[in-house]
Amino acid sequence: MATALIGFMGAGKSSAARRLSSDPVDTDALVEARLGRSIADVFASDGEAAFRAAEQEVVLEALTAAGSEAVIALGGGAVKSEPVRDALHDHTVVWLDVAPQAAWQRVSNKPGERPLAQTREDFFALHAERRDLYESIADVRLPDGADLEAAQRAWSLLAEAPPATRMTWSVTGQYPVYMGRGVLGLPAGPRSGRRFVITDQNVGEHYLAAISGAAGVIEIEAGEEHKTLQTAEIAWRALAEQGATRADHIVALGGGVVGDLSGFVASCYQRGIAVVQVPTTVVAMVDSALGGKTGVDLPSAKNYVGAYHQPAAVVIDPTVLATLPPEEHAAGYAEVVKTALIAGGSLWERVAAGGPIDDDVIFACACTKLAVVAADERDGGLRQVLNLGHTVGHAIETVTEYRRFRHGEAIALGLMAALRLSDLDALRTKVGELLRAAGLPITADGIDVDAVVAATRRDKKRLGELVPFVLVRAPGDVVFGQAVDDEALRAAIAEILTA
Amino acid sequence: MATALIGFMGAGKSSAARRLSSDPVDTDALVEARLGRSIADVFASDGEAAFRAAEQEVVLEALTAAGSEAVIALGGGAVKSEPVRDALHDHTVVWLDVAPQAAWQRVSNKPGERPLAQTREDFFALHAERRDLYESIADVRLPDGADLEAAQRAWSLLAEAPPATRMTWSVTGQYPVYMGRGVLGLPAGPRSGRRFVITDQNVGEHYLAAISGAAGVIEIEAGEEHKTLQTAEIAWRALAEQGATRADHIVALGGGVVGDLSGFVASCYQRGIAVVQVPTTVVAMVDSALGGKTGVDLPSAKNYVGAYHQPAAVVIDPTVLATLPPEEHAAGYAEVVKTALIAGGSLWERVAAGGPIDDDVIFACACTKLAVVAADERDGGLRQVLNLGHTVGHAIETVTEYRRFRHGEAIALGLMAALRLSDLDALRTKVGELLRAAGLPITADGIDVDAVVAATRRDKKRLGELVPFVLVRAPGDVVFGQAVDDEALRAAIAEILTA
Repeated sequence: MATALIGFMGAGKSSAARRLSSDPVDTDALVEARLGRSIADVFASDGEAAFRAAEQEVVLEALTAAGSEAVIALGGGAVKSEPVRDALHDHTVVWLDVAPQAAWQRVSNKPGERPLAQTREDFFALHAERRDLYESIADVRLPDGADLEAAQRAWSLLAEAPPATRMTWSVTGQYPVYMGRGVLGLPAGPRSGRRFVITDQNVGEHYLAAISGAAGVIEIEAGEEHKTLQTAEIAWRALAEQGATRADHIVALGGGVVGDLSGFVASCYQRGIAVVQVPTTVVAMVDSALGGKTGVDLPSAKNYVGAYHQPAAVVIDPTVLATLPPEEHAAGYAEVVKTALIAGGSLWERVAAGGPIDDDVIFACACTKLAVVAADERDGGLRQVLNLGHTVGHAIETVTEYRRFRHGEAIALGLMAALRLSDLDALRTKVGELLRAAGLPITADGIDVDAVVAATRRDKKRLGELVPFVLVRAPGDVVFGQAVDDEALRAAIAEILTA
Repeated sequence: MATALIGFMGAGKSSAARRLSSDPVDTDALVEARLGRSIADVFASDGEAAFRAAEQEVVLEALTAAGSEAVIALGGGAVKSEPVRDALHDHTVVWLDVAPQAAWQRVSNKPGERPLAQTREDFFALHAERRDLYESIADVRLPDGADLEAAQRAWSLLAEAPPATRMTWSVTGQYPVYMGRGVLGLPAGPRSGRRFVITDQNVGEHYLAAISGAAGVIEIEAGEEHKTLQTAEIAWRALAEQGATRADHIVALGGGVVGDLSGFVASCYQRGIAVVQVPTTVVAMVDSALGGKTGVDLPSAKNYVGAYHQPAAVVIDPTVLATLPPEEHAAGYAEVVKTALIAGGSLWERVAAGGPIDDDVIFACACTKLAVVAADERDGGLRQVLNLGHTVGHAIETVTEYRRFRHGEAIALGLMAALRLSDLDALRTKVGELLRAAGLPITADGIDVDAVVAATRRDKKRLGELVPFVLVRAPGDVVFGQAVDDEALRAAIAEILTA
């Protein structure tokens, strides 16, 4: 099983191959050697079809001849060939996912060498066209900025994973995210040290047996009301009693509460040990297990005590969703809708079409979250878009003391308020239909409007006097830091809180 | 009041002046312009004395003419002139403190330009000779690697400080450390946002009034037994209730317990806000307030929950030591001895001579600590030398449940054990005399030797099976990561724990 690097022009496939192997193979160079001319010349004199025929031949030969240590950089268009795609099944296909702006920046300096990079418009169109193809055949997706050597160590673990397992990469913190059916027990993260599992009763009962080689297990009580300093202290004391050291790490097996709390416990135990997140709910898979935000609640204020602590790895196994209660599944749907609104494009189209949350949607949501976090780890800017629906949602959770709604249910209400503030009637109606069809509330009764308005004003994202709101202009165009006047805020909250 | 940059050849004075001012003055260049020859030529034909005479004239003129915004880079030897030193009294004297290795590296590339940098041996000797001179006249000491612009903003605050206030700089975290009599109320740290003071009853009573403009005060109970998660939660809840936001910061006014706990509270409040450390004990001034280690104790394990959180500024006012109980003063002495053993050189000589802990010793200890931390923020290597005496010291604290000894007293015992393990009889005797003269214990009765040995083996610095020990080869030559066999460890502990 060799490694095949695919991706668009300017993604850096050739230089990546040189970094990853002492004997890299570059199929563009092989084609040029075989034909005795530059690719630009072949395009100019014989046309693209002639080049593709030669390319297919060379690539198939290279893939057939490749030993397991080989790293082969494929030309950007090589995967258009079905025989090539078939041959790739036997190899680890690593997609270097580059944004069109960055790729154009790199290739537009040498226009003569890239026959398909003549104009910016054509280049961007071709990038959009190829993107789905790369995505559909990649085993590993590496965003620009990934630590290649670390990623290579991580994808070598795919040999131990179920066949269809995919991997993506977080540039922030440089860690792998594995996703596949049956991947739950993959020994991801640090290869040395002992593993201490933190889980809750519900999850532990079903899935603890799948986690192999744990030196200790700490079972916490299930539910947001236990995401407290008291529960964290139970975990810290247990780790100390079990002799956990800085060389050991934690495996967080559970939903958002287990993940947030375990990440925080890891972050502060002896001033920081590693944590592997193994999310078991939709909310955790698409959102909370990714990005490094960890913490616990104070009685009056959600997530007020915490830390940024990026995981060492994330392992997503959608088979565990089979035992997820329907209402938890629904609650996760709210975060999926939120993420799809942020992503726009094909993810939004799939979600808007009303289909189920399948593995591809979960993986696409996870990739969206990682991309946003990569642009801004610490809430200084772009990351704030992830709070879409959360300002009012958190306020409702606070006022109802985290007891009445699941997090995702509160976010469904918050999304409706945010879309009202965004002044997008048709989109609000559409999202309302999706949320309701998933069994989520879009109105709630018996909650004091003024209390929610006041709690919104106390949001911890507040900097000084301003509570910055995240608003939607269109799917894929979400803006943060928007000031909202008191009257509009009150009206948007009153609309979801019926008497 | 202009800024005068002093320091050795290769410290980077000229380039620093260019970065700090749009109209920098370089006295070496002025001398060359006045004499119409290069400095190397002047040295070669007329000798050093002729150069010094011209240099003094030029420097005095430049200092006299300088406006308050001026930044003047002085030649490395200019401060040998007493008239120059007198003239510098009217200006902010900033010493760019470069290690001789780094300086030699830089200047040895262009030997022709530096008449005093002919051989490595002469260069190092001259560096050692000049060092005390720079130290004695500097208002601001900047180690290599300091963020110059940030440091400039920080030293501009000296205009608001008592006249003899000094400042040094932590390269790790890039923050200033101010030291001076009467400096307590200096508004160091973030210039915007509100200040929330955390202090304890004892300190608050005396010094809270000196801290101006606090938006809120949180008074915790005094004593190591209150360095707990429960106390931290009291502080977090109080901050939430008082509406503290991410734009605000904490002022930690107190000793090691207040500093460690407040730093941890700041680190995790809303995932991190700034903290200004205002240490009021010797231990805190020379050690715990510097370097960013924060945390609280678990009942069975000291500092097991915490974070690395560098302060935004540190303010050391030795006048507060006037109200420090004698036993606390003595406890701080143990850390001074430890630091002097690590530093060696003139600091060790002063401490070994048995003098009092004066302002210069405190400042020198603080600078030593910062230099060690700069080399290694997170205990991966050199920073471990700061644990000299702490492995056994912590174990004794654990076994006696933090009740019998002050931290510094336990460290005194730990130092005696570490020096036994280091096999340095004469030095152990000398240190024992110093500690005993300061009222510190060097033996203790009624403590179970086996319990201390077991607690030592459970030290949180342990990585896997090994507890790495810090041992002394000679003052200034302290080594970490030393394996110690069980028999020697037991004997060293038994020697300090009399029946």
